Amino acid sequence: MTDLAAVKAALRTQAVETPSWAYGNSGTRFKVFAQAGVPRDPWEKLQDAAKVHEFTGVAPTVALHIPWDRVEDYAALAKYAEERGLRLGAINSNTFQDDDYRLGSICHPDAAVRRKALDHLLECVDIMDATGSGDLKLWFADGTNYPGQDDIRARQDRLAEGLAEVYERLGEGQRMLLEYKFFEPAFYATDVPDWGTAYAHCLKLGPKAQVVVDTGHHAPGTNIEFIVATLLREGRLGGFDFNSRFYADDDLMVGAADPFQLFRIMYEVVRGGGFAAEAGIAFMLDQCHNIEAKIPAIIRSVMNVQEATAKALLVDRAALADAQVAGDVLGANAVLMDAYNTDVRTLVREVRGEMGVDPEPLAAYALSGWAERIAAERVGGQQAGWGA
Amino acid sequence: MTDLAAVKAALRTQAVETPSWAYGNSGTRFKVFAQAGVPRDPWEKLQDAAKVHEFTGVAPTVALHIPWDRVEDYAALAKYAEERGLRLGAINSNTFQDDDYRLGSICHPDAAVRRKALDHLLECVDIMDATGSGDLKLWFADGTNYPGQDDIRARQDRLAEGLAEVYERLGEGQRMLLEYKFFEPAFYATDVPDWGTAYAHCLKLGPKAQVVVDTGHHAPGTNIEFIVATLLREGRLGGFDFNSRFYADDDLMVGAADPFQLFRIMYEVVRGGGFAAEAGIAFMLDQCHNIEAKIPAIIRSVMNVQEATAKALLVDRAALADAQVAGDVLGANAVLMDAYNTDVRTLVREVRGEMGVDPEPLAAYALSGWAERIAAERVGGQQAGWGA
Amino acid sequence: MTDLAAVKAALRTQAVETPSWAYGNSGTRFKVFAQAGVPRDPWEKLQDAAKVHEFTGVAPTVALHIPWDRVEDYAALAKYAEERGLRLGAINSNTFQDDDYRLGSICHPDAAVRRKALDHLLECVDIMDATGSGDLKLWFADGTNYPGQDDIRARQDRLAEGLAEVYERLGEGQRMLLEYKFFEPAFYATDVPDWGTAYAHCLKLGPKAQVVVDTGHHAPGTNIEFIVATLLREGRLGGFDFNSRFYADDDLMVGAADPFQLFRIMYEVVRGGGFAAEAGIAFMLDQCHNIEAKIPAIIRSVMNVQEATAKALLVDRAALADAQVAGDVLGANAVLMDAYNTDVRTLVREVRGEMGVDPEPLAAYALSGWAERIAAERVGGQQAGWGA
Amino acid sequence: MTDLAAVKAALRTQAVETPSWAYGNSGTRFKVFAQAGVPRDPWEKLQDAAKVHEFTGVAPTVALHIPWDRVEDYAALAKYAEERGLRLGAINSNTFQDDDYRLGSICHPDAAVRRKALDHLLECVDIMDATGSGDLKLWFADGTNYPGQDDIRARQDRLAEGLAEVYERLGEGQRMLLEYKFFEPAFYATDVPDWGTAYAHCLKLGPKAQVVVDTGHHAPGTNIEFIVATLLREGRLGGFDFNSRFYADDDLMVGAADPFQLFRIMYEVVRGGGFAAEAGIAFMLDQCHNIEAKIPAIIRSVMNVQEATAKALLVDRAALADAQVAGDVLGANAVLMDAYNTDVRTLVREVRGEMGVDPEPLAAYALSGWAERIAAERVGGQQAGWGA
Repeated sequence: MTDLAAVKAALRTQAVETPSWAYGNSGTRFKVFAQAGVPRDPWEKLQDAAKVHEFTGVAPTVALHIPWDRVEDYAALAKYAEERGLRLGAINSNTFQDDDYRLGSICHPDAAVRRKALDHLLECVDIMDATGSGDLKLWFADGTNYPGQDDIRARQDRLAEGLAEVYERLGEGQRMLLEYKFFEPAFYATDVPDWGTAYAHCLKLGPKAQVVVDTGHHAPGTNIEFIVATLLREGRLGGFDFNSRFYADDDLMVGAADPFQLFRIMYEVVRGGGFAAEAGIAFMLDQCHNIEAKIPAIIRSVMNVQEATAKALLVDRAALADAQVAGDVLGANAVLMDAYNTDVRTLVREVRGEMGVDPEPLAAYALSGWAERIAAERVGGQQAGWGA
Repeated sequence: MTDLAAVKAALRTQAVETPSWAYGNSGTRFKVFAQAGVPRDPWEKLQDAAKVHEFTGVAPTVALHIPWDRVEDYAALAKYAEERGLRLGAINSNTFQDDDYRLGSICHPDAAVRRKALDHLLECVDIMDATGSGDLKLWFADGTNYPGQDDIRARQDRLAEGLAEVYERLGEGQRMLLEYKFFEPAFYATDVPDWGTAYAHCLKLGPKAQVVVDTGHHAPGTNIEFIVATLLREGRLGGFDFNSRFYADDDLMVGAADPFQLFRIMYEVVRGGGFAAEAGIAFMLDQCHNIEAKIPAIIRSVMNVQEATAKALLVDRAALADAQVAGDVLGANAVLMDAYNTDVRTLVREVRGEMGVDPEPLAAYALSGWAERIAAERVGGQQAGWGA
Repeated sequence: MTDLAAVKAALRTQAVETPSWAYGNSGTRFKVFAQAGVPRDPWEKLQDAAKVHEFTGVAPTVALHIPWDRVEDYAALAKYAEERGLRLGAINSNTFQDDDYRLGSICHPDAAVRRKALDHLLECVDIMDATGSGDLKLWFADGTNYPGQDDIRARQDRLAEGLAEVYERLGEGQRMLLEYKFFEPAFYATDVPDWGTAYAHCLKLGPKAQVVVDTGHHAPGTNIEFIVATLLREGRLGGFDFNSRFYADDDLMVGAADPFQLFRIMYEVVRGGGFAAEAGIAFMLDQCHNIEAKIPAIIRSVMNVQEATAKALLVDRAALADAQVAGDVLGANAVLMDAYNTDVRTLVREVRGEMGVDPEPLAAYALSGWAERIAAERVGGQQAGWGA
Repeated sequence: MTDLAAVKAALRTQAVETPSWAYGNSGTRFKVFAQAGVPRDPWEKLQDAAKVHEFTGVAPTVALHIPWDRVEDYAALAKYAEERGLRLGAINSNTFQDDDYRLGSICHPDAAVRRKALDHLLECVDIMDATGSGDLKLWFADGTNYPGQDDIRARQDRLAEGLAEVYERLGEGQRMLLEYKFFEPAFYATDVPDWGTAYAHCLKLGPKAQVVVDTGHHAPGTNIEFIVATLLREGRLGGFDFNSRFYADDDLMVGAADPFQLFRIMYEVVRGGGFAAEAGIAFMLDQCHNIEAKIPAIIRSVMNVQEATAKALLVDRAALADAQVAGDVLGANAVLMDAYNTDVRTLVREVRGEMGVDPEPLAAYALSGWAERIAAERVGGQQAGWGA
């Protein structure tokens, strides 16, 4: 039997980090559809993130992306966040949008380009110092499009060298979260294509280097919860970039494509102790709301993570262990499915009530008038986007 | 034994259509890297296409994309092409880059948006009338990102209705080439996701409606040559959009990712009579040269198609048939592999010589000074691109 | 608002066909793990199927596989079924286990092998006459393992010729269900690899030829519900072979790998009128219970189909249509998800009660003592299996 | 410029290990097609392997599989091999065909089953002592079919514990080669599913533990040469199990499905120093010749590896490095493609001549009469197979 009070207590402490860029415009290579009311600067992104936290209660931090969120005064930005009940989260680097990065950044064959990329990464740590962020999240678009284009192995050497320099720079309470990605924008070989590569680099760097699992960055058919369990077992799971996919890195709302998979991932997090504060797992969203309203989509995504977590917490682990040890295939599966098949929406509504949050975040947000207000006020200027 | 003279004769008649947009800038959602010398208008694109034809001898037509290649006077454009030894090829429609198309074009739930998209398609036929193009190539980005977002079946009804209106408008010697695509930019359901859907619609429309196979638009593991053979057998193969891929619709140079697959596809074309003029198959490229020099990449792509074709023509079909009928698995495979393993580059060089073309297209282009000239001259203005 | 009484009424009329072979042993190429109590002949398989029907109330028919279920007297078998509350369902042919079929059956290069295969198919229709079965289910393992091994197109010609002969033989009230499969056991080209190929053949054959969708027979990422919607729209969906998969044709219990996908499929069935009796859709299981107890696994599978159906029926279609027409992406998705997120187990239990079936099929089966009884009694002889 | 003499010298030292089981019968779960002349015991398998070595000159070792190749006297078997110019190669364990292994072997929840599996692995080391084999090749079919069936993480603990005990037992000059596999026969979670998992275990075990790359054991789209380069860079590439695939673990002849991929893999081996004797890389085949003649298929496979190696050695590495450093995408790709597009069959024929081997292995084998002789002589008894 699961202890409902404990489940609720765990849900009340949950924290999902929303990404500043998800509040801005995004799209595919074919088209970016602009939306009314989209923020024009990091301050407005924080306003929107504050709404998500206000209506969900479990989205207290916001990830920044440099240079998209570059400001003069990061301390002021941090203070602006704080005043809205938020904290600044991971600092995400960008080494893929300068013309110099056509053939890569810290894996580029040219030392001058590598230097430029490294300087950007070091600047990101400076920003962490200013914002108080603990996490430097590194995703590299580095790779090659054609066989032979560059030396796969030499690129690993350059990668290792670059990461080591950045690692060295990390201060007290700071860590490096290394993300891997199966493909895109590189179409032949990606320099950090899988968890094994990220893990191998982290191992050599030291304990402050950990792997980030972006749920959209795997080959078809990959068992992501296995990777989660393995990285937790190795003490190298730094966090998640949540989103969902039917095909490639579609960046849809987490839980929209395969809610059962999200539940299984969350179950392995629970199983592996990943919800304990000391585990230090960052639960981040990384999504693109290309055609749907952005703030409601982010609220919905946070709710999806919550509901999957609730189901994972509801698994009767004693009964599961009994069936597993007994080799009862159907029985063990049934214990897991019982939790998954439970409608947890009432439970989560109750948790919200206990936290002083409206039980119906989407309805409450819709009634709040925020969408209308920003559409009316945020006119003129340049809407935030990826700048591709 | 294969008749070398016949192989050469076939190769001399080969015609690969290059796409105007491949001469312009392209990229991923993360970044478009601009290149020096990229055309700023359709006229300059034709200049570049003329170079590709000059140095390969087998790229006599150029596909246009509307609105990217919209001009005041299409007859003048056709004449401009003709003066450079080119003809205008397929007219490609674009129903994915207007803000109105956020939720689709001719499958959109709103009749007004459908009307707008249809009007564009009809305008494309007007342009065909003006340019003398025979092919209207239709690719629809239509689809949905989330389950439930729209009614999958109603969208098929709208698609059928729209296609019928366009089909009706086709004149003498004009046809409709319907392209399918597995996914992107729609991430849940695409309205023409596979050859079966395209085929079913073409069947109902009539004989002027045919299917286009884009080699990058399939699910992982799909046997493309089977589809080619099947469509040829059904008399519904209208043409190809050639490119290559390791992962999704990577749009790399054709033959760069899996040259053996390209050979197998070409073999089925040969086998099915697809090289005969009366087959009317359009052999088109549809590629994105995101990081490599564009004109040389297109020359290389044309050469790759040529070489794969040469190998396909070299298959000893009598020996193959004998081994197949005898159930000699290894023997039959060996006949095919013998042709594939042949180095046909000397043969193709000879063909070029016989056609009065430099045997080494890439070297000749490099020596021609064209790249330097356009880099110097095409300064200012707006480089062509997708306008995403 | 959905009409709960109507939902329950629909669920009471649901009928899932279980496959005789799922009661027997199965495995992978590496190992078949035998289980105690497995049937030794078709009669014992029917006994087990009767138990599944007894405890679920919605599994009234059993598919046979010839020659695995060959008996002297099919009328006696039909009567034996009837006495247990069952009817005999689809007759499944087998043209892949005779040594003559190494290179194919009705697509084989040798006319004598084709004749042999055709005679088997015609025999299956004879059996249908004897059993009163209406469906001839055809799955062909035909294909090639190596490029060049056989002529892809000629194999299509042979396939068309063979199917036509069998179609000709079909009597009143009989139809042909043609199954497609992405790959396995052929590893290069399969002769009916996708729905398009099956559909094209059915179109030519006539109205009695329809396509079967086996949920495990698609390329990675394929949107199966789109195919379902399309075939229903075309009037060519004959039925399902339900199972689930994470990778290839894993043949796990339906709903075990991706319950959300099963729900979406069922929703398209509902949407397309596929639950109406006149639609004539056969809802069949086709699974392998390699490591789990067979009868409980089949009961569970039937329950999974029921629950997915219940959720599909609960979709508020008026609200959905409103949101779709309004272009409300998140709203429309939310309507669908509301139904999916509902815990329908209580509803289904009630339906069982109304049908006079125990609300808890698995618990009731476990208590029945049947498993112990067959393990004790079915000793000696040869357990049923695939005979591979 | 490449040094042809050096290329030839390298090719003369090449050694491909053939697997004893490839000489026996194999098939899919649907059917094993028996072939005439197939060996009935390990001695006859060695006879066939000797033929492959006789006609290729580069297949001097044979991998054994226990228990399929269990004999009374392994020293006698080694001597029998030696008399035929062969040596015994890797010892392959089998922990998937005993009824006890239904839910796994060294990862099984039951300690008694784990003990049994471990005892088998230790017995394999005993056999290595007797045969003089240096490599223990471990592939585990362990995994689960259903979510929840067993505890993913606990299975890793058991795996680590089991491997450690076996590692401890390894003697001087012995090593452990750990194979990973994406899926099959487990269909939900496999306990060693990717190179990262194998690598992580090997790291903890010590320097004698290395990873085996089976070219058929990856997710769709995986860049295998990247893994090869990475493992070589880490000093953890133990060897290859060569075969080829279009879909899953098809086990077709290496080089038959994607010869360009095989070339790229071989290039990374060359690049990473993997052909040096001190690298200790084992180049093994692991294939199933389900429908084609077995000995010719193995000869052909060895030839395919040779030809891919020849092409890899022909890459003009200086020119490649120049183009790579210059960021010349097309130029670098062209250098690689030049080698790939070369017809190396004449070169390889010359190498054979220099080694005193017939330049045409398949023709020479066909003329030798061996196939006819074994078909006539190996009558009665039980043909070797997987015993599934």
